[in-house]
Amino acid sequence: MAMRLSEQQREAALAQLDGWSRMVGRDAISASFRFTDFNQAFGFMSRVALMAEKLDHHPEWSNVYNRVEIVLTTHDAGGLTDKDIELARFISRIAPDGSMAAL
Amino acid sequence: MAMRLSEQQREAALAQLDGWSRMVGRDAISASFRFTDFNQAFGFMSRVALMAEKLDHHPEWSNVYNRVEIVLTTHDAGGLTDKDIELARFISRIAPDGSMAAL
Repeated sequence: MAMRLSEQQREAALAQLDGWSRMVGRDAISASFRFTDFNQAFGFMSRVALMAEKLDHHPEWSNVYNRVEIVLTTHDAGGLTDKDIELARFISRIAPDGSMAAL
Repeated sequence: MAMRLSEQQREAALAQLDGWSRMVGRDAISASFRFTDFNQAFGFMSRVALMAEKLDHHPEWSNVYNRVEIVLTTHDAGGLTDKDIELARFISRIAPDGSMAAL
């Protein structure tokens, strides 16, 4: 089972993850994305969904037209693990330039 | 542009839409779904997404693993219109038996 990251591990990981924020009151990270339209937003979600299945690790997420909000945490572990960082890295890599909204 | 439904129209429409509820404090309807797993949940979302694009009318929705929450309203019209009812009917038709959770 994935182990929760230590404070040092999470700080090191998050320093390399532009656009992701630690949530307040919850051991999780979140990011917001804004796309041109629904087609682009759902296309992005479909790519994330395929990777989520491959990793067997799934996001909490919501979508309204061209906007997508994603929260990552590992329910089994009760907090942030390597799996969240791995999925976050993939998401950041495939997000079009400029689509990650500042929080 | 779509016109907001009258009280009589929305009551008639909702009487035929099992599992959908009117939201409190917002002119919108919502429904919750629970699937076997993420594969089934995202497959369902993909079918809804294709229809949403076809209708040019999109849901507000969120997903956590096997659960999907959907809110329908028409932003342009500031409330519930025929478009919401049409999309809700489609969603209800493709939802597997037993997947609509009681609210």
